[in-house]
Amino acid sequence: MRAVEWNPAGPAVRVIDQRRLPSSVEHVDLSSVQDVAQAIAAMTVRGAPTIGAVAAFGLALAAHASDASSLPALWDDIARATRLLQSARPTAINLAWALDHVTRQVTQSQPASVAAAKASLLAEAQRLADDEVARNRKIGQHGAALLADGDTVIHHCHTGGLAAVDYGTALGIIRAAHEQGKRLHVLVDETRPRLQGARLTAWELQQLGISHEIITDGAAGHFMRRGEVHAALVGADRVAANGDVANKIGTYMLALAASANHVPFYSAFPTSTVDLECPDGASIPIEERPADEVLHLSIDGQPIAPAGSRARNPAFDVTPHELITALVTEAGVLRPPFGPALRQATLEGMPA
Amino acid sequence: MRAVEWNPAGPAVRVIDQRRLPSSVEHVDLSSVQDVAQAIAAMTVRGAPTIGAVAAFGLALAAHASDASSLPALWDDIARATRLLQSARPTAINLAWALDHVTRQVTQSQPASVAAAKASLLAEAQRLADDEVARNRKIGQHGAALLADGDTVIHHCHTGGLAAVDYGTALGIIRAAHEQGKRLHVLVDETRPRLQGARLTAWELQQLGISHEIITDGAAGHFMRRGEVHAALVGADRVAANGDVANKIGTYMLALAASANHVPFYSAFPTSTVDLECPDGASIPIEERPADEVLHLSIDGQPIAPAGSRARNPAFDVTPHELITALVTEAGVLRPPFGPALRQATLEGMPA
Repeated sequence: MRAVEWNPAGPAVRVIDQRRLPSSVEHVDLSSVQDVAQAIAAMTVRGAPTIGAVAAFGLALAAHASDASSLPALWDDIARATRLLQSARPTAINLAWALDHVTRQVTQSQPASVAAAKASLLAEAQRLADDEVARNRKIGQHGAALLADGDTVIHHCHTGGLAAVDYGTALGIIRAAHEQGKRLHVLVDETRPRLQGARLTAWELQQLGISHEIITDGAAGHFMRRGEVHAALVGADRVAANGDVANKIGTYMLALAASANHVPFYSAFPTSTVDLECPDGASIPIEERPADEVLHLSIDGQPIAPAGSRARNPAFDVTPHELITALVTEAGVLRPPFGPALRQATLEGMPA
Repeated sequence: MRAVEWNPAGPAVRVIDQRRLPSSVEHVDLSSVQDVAQAIAAMTVRGAPTIGAVAAFGLALAAHASDASSLPALWDDIARATRLLQSARPTAINLAWALDHVTRQVTQSQPASVAAAKASLLAEAQRLADDEVARNRKIGQHGAALLADGDTVIHHCHTGGLAAVDYGTALGIIRAAHEQGKRLHVLVDETRPRLQGARLTAWELQQLGISHEIITDGAAGHFMRRGEVHAALVGADRVAANGDVANKIGTYMLALAASANHVPFYSAFPTSTVDLECPDGASIPIEERPADEVLHLSIDGQPIAPAGSRARNPAFDVTPHELITALVTEAGVLRPPFGPALRQATLEGMPA
């Protein structure tokens, strides 16, 4: 099941509305770049690689809607669309990377006409989405070697097919190991405030027939301390040049618990998630989302807290590289020191 | 506002139904020992010191209902009631302590008749509840010295008046510092799965006019790492002889984050929470509560996870004493090594 597809009949980007799962699987057609930006900001679609692919298709929609009669005028429209999409969410670098990558591919191909440029933008967005899935399968293959038959693993947030166009990153590793016949048990961090673990990860694991139990985020340390956990697996929203990982809020505390209990901690992502221009995690912008996500339940809008309460809602945190055992990319499993390994994997491993 | 009161008109123990807060403040009269045991198990009342006091009144209710015509027959009924109450929740030692304390006080006073024994049981339960509040005020006084004007503190779960008959333990420290004129800001861990932080702690802080914001449990480390937090404060459900603290699930991960970021971590409790017979945290029984508390929202029973999902739900975890800066009891602030300090405070500090 693809999280992101092009619907030529619209034209539109067809996505699965992740806010409706697991109670229903609903597809939504986003038929303008404004719709795409709004869907990313509202987390109708989420997951760093999925956001990148949806944004790339957003450029194709902007091109389709453009009435530019010259290439420079078209590029003006694309630049405007890029700024709109960029601003939808600040932390995941895949968004900026995808926009830049698609635009660069098309300009380098020197299209002869506005029509050719428009077709090329769509083709590159399509290719980016397909490549994402291919990268995920490689991440899965590399990472599966880290898991043994009988392992219990903890997984934070959601990194499955929905988050990564298809197949998944960290969840793709679990999936690949499962496909190799390894019997795994997954403790699924529910992942407050939006409960992506309980809603999306549990749902995908159920579809895949992989044994799992949901736990509250605060319980992970308890199970690690009891010796019940063999590995912790997470994705990434942006990885700094030194290996510091920005990922869903709660990841840092999970990494601390893993480190204290000698549980290997792995972060899995395509190299498009690496930002070599961020020297370390402190330079990664951390999105603060509306307090309402904490104070009301995303499930049904029911209030949790007393009326008038305030909340803080950082969507991500930074896990320092010292707490990370290995980074898993499509280029392979990277071990410390992460700096040189990341640089090499990112510059060589990325599509040209 | 008292969380637990005797209602002679019933007779009954009148408690605030903590499951209904913050949407409404409802009092419930528990008029039999069975009602009391059920209210403790269902967490209508919760918080280690409150549970102890409610259970003590439960013995008075059992005595009132007893048709024993001799003292030995009455003690048989009391022993049966004790077993029932004990089994309601396994981790908080205050429950066992309160039952034992009240019974011992009455037997030592050698009541001359069944009627005298019944009256004495009620008087001792009443005294225990009053003493709890006095102890909390002492904890507050001792602990307030640990907080400075302008501090931001993180608080986990709920340790306010509702949890501790009145005034509170860890929250009592915040309250005492506030009463001394110190300006504090509290980051309130929402505390999944039952959201005692968002529902009860935020509500009490609102009543007290103390500045606060609610955060998800997984966000605590992020704020500590940013240097925004000056202290972490929690209660305790059972403290082992070496200072290991069993407390609400998530406490251990909070302590790890505090330790990694050099934030002082304090656990506050009356010495009735200390179990000198548990050498360390590994010997404290950890209650596993129904999976349903994780899979459905306690607020309104709305499902979070896909139908058929399983969950694990340990209600408590153990924080090893190495992660704790100080323990705050009515006997004073105890510093490491905790073993001798706890022993002295518990044996000398307890009511005779």
